[in-house]
Amino acid sequence: MSGIETTGSKRLVLVSGRAHPALAKQIAAELGSELVPTDARTFANGELYARYDESVRGSDAFVIQSHAAPINEWLMEQLIMVDALKRASAKRITVVSPFYPYARQDKKGRGREPISARLVADLYKAAGADRIMSIDLHAAQIQGFFDGPVDHLFAMPVLLEEFKNSLDPETLTVVSPDMGRVRVADIWSDKLGVPLAIIHKRRDPLVPNQVSVHEIVGEVDGRVCLLVDDLIDTGRTIVKAAEALKANGATGVVVAATHAVFSNPATEILQSDFIDRVVVTDTLPLPEEKRWDRLTVLPIAPLLARAIHEVFEDGSVTSMFDGAA
Amino acid sequence: MSGIETTGSKRLVLVSGRAHPALAKQIAAELGSELVPTDARTFANGELYARYDESVRGSDAFVIQSHAAPINEWLMEQLIMVDALKRASAKRITVVSPFYPYARQDKKGRGREPISARLVADLYKAAGADRIMSIDLHAAQIQGFFDGPVDHLFAMPVLLEEFKNSLDPETLTVVSPDMGRVRVADIWSDKLGVPLAIIHKRRDPLVPNQVSVHEIVGEVDGRVCLLVDDLIDTGRTIVKAAEALKANGATGVVVAATHAVFSNPATEILQSDFIDRVVVTDTLPLPEEKRWDRLTVLPIAPLLARAIHEVFEDGSVTSMFDGAA
Amino acid sequence: MSGIETTGSKRLVLVSGRAHPALAKQIAAELGSELVPTDARTFANGELYARYDESVRGSDAFVIQSHAAPINEWLMEQLIMVDALKRASAKRITVVSPFYPYARQDKKGRGREPISARLVADLYKAAGADRIMSIDLHAAQIQGFFDGPVDHLFAMPVLLEEFKNSLDPETLTVVSPDMGRVRVADIWSDKLGVPLAIIHKRRDPLVPNQVSVHEIVGEVDGRVCLLVDDLIDTGRTIVKAAEALKANGATGVVVAATHAVFSNPATEILQSDFIDRVVVTDTLPLPEEKRWDRLTVLPIAPLLARAIHEVFEDGSVTSMFDGAA
Amino acid sequence: MSGIETTGSKRLVLVSGRAHPALAKQIAAELGSELVPTDARTFANGELYARYDESVRGSDAFVIQSHAAPINEWLMEQLIMVDALKRASAKRITVVSPFYPYARQDKKGRGREPISARLVADLYKAAGADRIMSIDLHAAQIQGFFDGPVDHLFAMPVLLEEFKNSLDPETLTVVSPDMGRVRVADIWSDKLGVPLAIIHKRRDPLVPNQVSVHEIVGEVDGRVCLLVDDLIDTGRTIVKAAEALKANGATGVVVAATHAVFSNPATEILQSDFIDRVVVTDTLPLPEEKRWDRLTVLPIAPLLARAIHEVFEDGSVTSMFDGAA
Amino acid sequence: MSGIETTGSKRLVLVSGRAHPALAKQIAAELGSELVPTDARTFANGELYARYDESVRGSDAFVIQSHAAPINEWLMEQLIMVDALKRASAKRITVVSPFYPYARQDKKGRGREPISARLVADLYKAAGADRIMSIDLHAAQIQGFFDGPVDHLFAMPVLLEEFKNSLDPETLTVVSPDMGRVRVADIWSDKLGVPLAIIHKRRDPLVPNQVSVHEIVGEVDGRVCLLVDDLIDTGRTIVKAAEALKANGATGVVVAATHAVFSNPATEILQSDFIDRVVVTDTLPLPEEKRWDRLTVLPIAPLLARAIHEVFEDGSVTSMFDGAA
Amino acid sequence: MSGIETTGSKRLVLVSGRAHPALAKQIAAELGSELVPTDARTFANGELYARYDESVRGSDAFVIQSHAAPINEWLMEQLIMVDALKRASAKRITVVSPFYPYARQDKKGRGREPISARLVADLYKAAGADRIMSIDLHAAQIQGFFDGPVDHLFAMPVLLEEFKNSLDPETLTVVSPDMGRVRVADIWSDKLGVPLAIIHKRRDPLVPNQVSVHEIVGEVDGRVCLLVDDLIDTGRTIVKAAEALKANGATGVVVAATHAVFSNPATEILQSDFIDRVVVTDTLPLPEEKRWDRLTVLPIAPLLARAIHEVFEDGSVTSMFDGAA
Repeated sequence: MSGIETTGSKRLVLVSGRAHPALAKQIAAELGSELVPTDARTFANGELYARYDESVRGSDAFVIQSHAAPINEWLMEQLIMVDALKRASAKRITVVSPFYPYARQDKKGRGREPISARLVADLYKAAGADRIMSIDLHAAQIQGFFDGPVDHLFAMPVLLEEFKNSLDPETLTVVSPDMGRVRVADIWSDKLGVPLAIIHKRRDPLVPNQVSVHEIVGEVDGRVCLLVDDLIDTGRTIVKAAEALKANGATGVVVAATHAVFSNPATEILQSDFIDRVVVTDTLPLPEEKRWDRLTVLPIAPLLARAIHEVFEDGSVTSMFDGAA
Repeated sequence: MSGIETTGSKRLVLVSGRAHPALAKQIAAELGSELVPTDARTFANGELYARYDESVRGSDAFVIQSHAAPINEWLMEQLIMVDALKRASAKRITVVSPFYPYARQDKKGRGREPISARLVADLYKAAGADRIMSIDLHAAQIQGFFDGPVDHLFAMPVLLEEFKNSLDPETLTVVSPDMGRVRVADIWSDKLGVPLAIIHKRRDPLVPNQVSVHEIVGEVDGRVCLLVDDLIDTGRTIVKAAEALKANGATGVVVAATHAVFSNPATEILQSDFIDRVVVTDTLPLPEEKRWDRLTVLPIAPLLARAIHEVFEDGSVTSMFDGAA
Repeated sequence: MSGIETTGSKRLVLVSGRAHPALAKQIAAELGSELVPTDARTFANGELYARYDESVRGSDAFVIQSHAAPINEWLMEQLIMVDALKRASAKRITVVSPFYPYARQDKKGRGREPISARLVADLYKAAGADRIMSIDLHAAQIQGFFDGPVDHLFAMPVLLEEFKNSLDPETLTVVSPDMGRVRVADIWSDKLGVPLAIIHKRRDPLVPNQVSVHEIVGEVDGRVCLLVDDLIDTGRTIVKAAEALKANGATGVVVAATHAVFSNPATEILQSDFIDRVVVTDTLPLPEEKRWDRLTVLPIAPLLARAIHEVFEDGSVTSMFDGAA
Repeated sequence: MSGIETTGSKRLVLVSGRAHPALAKQIAAELGSELVPTDARTFANGELYARYDESVRGSDAFVIQSHAAPINEWLMEQLIMVDALKRASAKRITVVSPFYPYARQDKKGRGREPISARLVADLYKAAGADRIMSIDLHAAQIQGFFDGPVDHLFAMPVLLEEFKNSLDPETLTVVSPDMGRVRVADIWSDKLGVPLAIIHKRRDPLVPNQVSVHEIVGEVDGRVCLLVDDLIDTGRTIVKAAEALKANGATGVVVAATHAVFSNPATEILQSDFIDRVVVTDTLPLPEEKRWDRLTVLPIAPLLARAIHEVFEDGSVTSMFDGAA
Repeated sequence: MSGIETTGSKRLVLVSGRAHPALAKQIAAELGSELVPTDARTFANGELYARYDESVRGSDAFVIQSHAAPINEWLMEQLIMVDALKRASAKRITVVSPFYPYARQDKKGRGREPISARLVADLYKAAGADRIMSIDLHAAQIQGFFDGPVDHLFAMPVLLEEFKNSLDPETLTVVSPDMGRVRVADIWSDKLGVPLAIIHKRRDPLVPNQVSVHEIVGEVDGRVCLLVDDLIDTGRTIVKAAEALKANGATGVVVAATHAVFSNPATEILQSDFIDRVVVTDTLPLPEEKRWDRLTVLPIAPLLARAIHEVFEDGSVTSMFDGAA
Repeated sequence: MSGIETTGSKRLVLVSGRAHPALAKQIAAELGSELVPTDARTFANGELYARYDESVRGSDAFVIQSHAAPINEWLMEQLIMVDALKRASAKRITVVSPFYPYARQDKKGRGREPISARLVADLYKAAGADRIMSIDLHAAQIQGFFDGPVDHLFAMPVLLEEFKNSLDPETLTVVSPDMGRVRVADIWSDKLGVPLAIIHKRRDPLVPNQVSVHEIVGEVDGRVCLLVDDLIDTGRTIVKAAEALKANGATGVVVAATHAVFSNPATEILQSDFIDRVVVTDTLPLPEEKRWDRLTVLPIAPLLARAIHEVFEDGSVTSMFDGAA
């Protein structure tokens, strides 16, 4: 038969945007590899540019980017990097976005709104991405926004490990900071085998349109409260919640969240006396000035590296979470 | 200049599948129009067929179908009807699916699951649908599954109207039958200006993997409880909730839901003494044998007709709901 | 150069819907493999669900389903299974539909009809299928409905093998049961080197719009007639044809068809005295109550298994049919 | 409300390739309009070019082209004209291809063949066509190759009109020139209410792989035979058929076909004494040197003009054919 | 016939991003209309949001945005606005981007580069844009990057008008600031009927990789030089060119460009003594601190307004430029 | 785990259209392989056909075609061959078009023109091509017309090698034959380290719309001039340029171009005394009658073979050109 036949091979390639180089380097190190040297630049008028210094032809490429502020810059940089990979004949392109951009705009709350989380999925597709990997999506339905595989990872095992020895299940209560995040707290409560409480920002029926009560559902008096959420943005909700918990007799308030967005004034107000400790992961870059003594930042690179390895080797990402995902 | 110029016109056309002809006829009547006569049939081996007896060329077509059991038959019939419209040169095709099929499979809860709600959106698109109209989606994120406009209607105004005179805000409490439906109850509580309670199916920390407590969060003793949900399927959750409410001192339990799926054994158990009244709409067909005296079925056709009219006339669907989407 | 390089490998994976599990198991056995354990279920309201119990990441997956009644259920189940494979990162997905659903609605016979056979191809594509494998398509043009490779297999070699010893070419005549199936009979006639006859359901020019004559074209007197068709649905056409043949002097009538749809009243009327024997394959499930003594059901699994093997190994499916396909 | 509102209007626009300008001009004349002046040219190296001299913005454009030899030139010219319309903001683009190019390559007869008829549909789509209009497709399934509306017209009424007075139903028989074209002859036979005969190019079972018998099925002795087909290419099949008919006692042989492809040596051999008359339409250009005295060429422009008018006015094309198509 | 028929109408709608509100308002004023009130915001973490306060259903919408720094913010805002329009059932969406973002990255100069100008076209498409309107694209080929109509406008008539009375053709020479922009200068030279000169940044053959000569091709001694370009970014090329011209005897140097990007240090160095005057348009916002006495900024809104009007009314944009475009 | 696992392999396959079989055979020979035997034919009415005689399943296929006149035939043949590969389950399909068809129609110079170079990219995509390989695109932006990888090769190294010994850098000047091709000449001038001159077809300001001066920019008196271009079509521009150079004192004129389109009357006029030598490659077939003594035709097959090898082996095509491409 005509033609030339050879045995196939496959090559994993890691490239990274400029948002969070430390994370990308740690992932590469975990995998025993290195990032592809990349010339990424911003021109005088703000336009971005990226070029790979090595061939990526035929590769299984992972484009790592963290979506901290300026979030649109980093999203655009990632799209440009995907476009360059596509045109350079990469075989498969996986977008690694630990904190999915625009995840909170996942539906039309009112008429004539965008659904930006779907738009982001469409932009990834248009640029040439075949797959998405992300951690703790704000709504699990975002998986359905992308027309292709989404590897949805969970940081809970990483966070749990941290609390294993420091918190006593006998005195612990998991608390959801508001009605909309009950799903997350529910899973934690199950996993830890401890009671659940919820903070309900209820409108007073007599005073319309105003949150008047931070009602606490469940028992927190004399308990250590573990406030859990997928992300902390400005920190206001968490601090109010902590204040209410302490006011209702909680003996301690510990906060656990995956994504430390920490928009202004988060860094300042999270150091409030109502909060004894904050534990987050480094899915987003946290410069020194955004850290303080009672903040613990857990490395997320091992989780991502293991998932990338499973994807590349056609293993199982699901098995990393005991059946979840 | 060459060519022939005439003034444009536009024509609204309503076609209906065979799942719920009464609803389609009522919509047509509300609009002062008629359904396009259609030859819809099932062949001996189960294959479906549909053909329009009148031209639909250039029309703004609405394909009405209700997704009761056998749900896959009706979905396939609707897809076939969309295909026939597309090939018959309809100008714009809107799928009217009051109860969105497979809405509950809206995410991967575990690995290797489908996201069937997204698949349904893709099937509508593949058949040729330009738009979707639906009522009370199980998750609002489903709007983002379709690559085009989704008119998301709310049955709450219809249901509220029914309760306006029969329930006293002074003694009323809105109750969510479980943690996952809090969002719906929250809106009702706001709208009615009455307190909210939640039923939490909590696992006992001492007895793993078993729901042991139907804990009631909020005050229900001496109150009339309005249990609200988007749909009632087998009815088991609702009946258990009603039982718990009565056990905790509720003086009355009224149930309100948009979609009366009423799978076995719903019809039987909903007639329980714990439930004083059930109010639903007829988004799904409810034959006589699935009705009983304490069940009220409100007509949904006026709502759909008005929305279709707004869409056809380029009016505002949003304005039908005071700013809600 | 950066990155991790390993030798590639590929993995064939077989999954099956619930329409015809015996066939799927036989295919797996022929290949020396097993079906991926799958949790497939029907919920109370008729919605379907499927989940794979093992990783299918990176696999070359074949989704086997037979489209017997309830045909829309099984089609939808197959689409859902394809969606789940796509989202679970299968590398290539081939839909194995031995009897292509809706094959007979392959054109617009009249205005405002659907072309459901094309719609089915579009639905497969929308769900994520890369390829289709089918047997004896009702019209070969259906291959052109799918935007990708279609492996079109022929059951004739399987059926021919059965007749090799039982029928004598000297006395045999191949008969087409109607004008529209001449193409199939033509091929059989060539292959067996025996004469061809055709049954023409002709309208009497004097009595409009009524089939008045079952005219037989060709010589059947004193011959054993082999009636061939791609499928038998209700059986009415075949039985009428057999009756006409016997009335015209045929000494025997044997029927051969690939797809035993056997819709009501096929099982009953095919046992008519006019028919001496019926030979079909098991592309569709045939429960005991649809079988009788003069019916022979040939296993189709070896043919499908060999084709799947060729596809997986990049061999030639064409070569299985001496140049055809 | 913001914005500017005006009443809508619509404008029909006709443009034509260079293959058959007379046909396009007649269509325009029938519609009381004119072709858009177009600068169409062939450059020195064979590349084509087309530019419209008038605005086509917002128009309902019909791109008329006949696919005579050099067929690929004219197909490419049509694609380029569609591209130019798309980029010039035409609102809707209908490709008018009376003789669909590559219609005979509508399936894979053997492995590794193209399905060029589907490819042509894909090329039209890629260039920007929204709709296709064609006459007497070689296989009706080609309608399903295009993902959009196909207006499938029939020339039979035009041809029938011609025969109304010249042929006597009492002595007439409709004949299909080979087994594969039975479908067409069947419709004629029904419409005229006259008997049907078929010419079967049968292989002698004793002499494999060779057509030995032009067997005539049905009665032709003493009859006037009307040989019907969708197209005449080289004419060989038709002439052989006519010869066989005359040899079997036919008193006259008249040929009717829609598309006069007339590839070499059609013009010469169709003037055979076996054929008394040939009637075709001018879907393809027929220069004087391809015409002879016993050839009648009927104008097809009125049919196309009427169909274009119906499409533009959102009327019914189906109604032009008494319910067909 | 069934259905409801009304006369059609169409509505032009203008929406604007936040990059250059003055331009958008001027366009609206020129058209005698107003911008749709829009709630556009930036959240704490940098995510953007936009919602229209009025219905845009069925409208012909134009999304005006200027792509000044921060260019990625404004691009993303525009994409989000397009998404919101699409989901709100706008009928047609035209992106109005006077200065096309990333226009200069229009090809792969080296391996593994992105083609960001094509990516931008793909992103517009993915968000839902049907058409693009832009002014003086850096390369005309960018029109071919978008799969749909692109209205390519020219600012030259606006700029020419300004020079009509102030410059004397007798003493004027048009100069291209470098080899790559010759095309633009060529058109000006033709239009004004004056000589052309070019500045060639040539590498000295003896000193590799270094631009050693700013060679002036053509006569500039004693002439007033009009340096023309499509855009001025940092201004360095222009200033160097002006210096060379004056050094070679030019009696005056006037600069004309469409897009005043004016990245640092443009504002400062363009005030050089070598340059007598700079004339630009306001396709990009120019705050007071970026203006100086010898800078003239011409309003571009009339040109855009007229083009939008032609598009909405299905007139001719081409005719605005005497056959160009 | 279920399924069958084997080591992967990959197979390069070369197929060729009928435009330039010698080139395809040389490429195969360079690669130590053979072309897949193909049955390619033209039917009587001009329709084309192609079928592969060997399996191409799973292959990495390259479809070689040269786009000489009749250019539309060869383009269509290539599209048909791609379609056949796609349907025969080739894994990846690369279109090898050394001279990209319609490259010069790469933008809308005026309103209502096509962008045929983009159309060609769309047609390749529609047929099923995954990648394009071409040499010296008329405009590099054409890379951005295709939604996938484009391997853009440069013939300059091949041409340069030829001149290495025959031309003396001391006396050589590179000349661009017109303003629009300056980019190409610029690169040659840099590469050879010799001066650059340009021929400017300038309109006399006093005589509108007429090219009156073939002005030479740069020094050519006493120099050997190397006229470079990407293609030579009718040759008129080149001959006029050579004449002007000689008239201005050039001691020799040598012409180098990649694509020898040589449309009439190129072969004749290029033998002018003004031109001492013409060097081209054989990207297009050049029969004996189009060759003469002072014409050198360099083989391009080695370059294409090397690039195909790099693509197949996931090597670097960029590295073939020292960083370019």
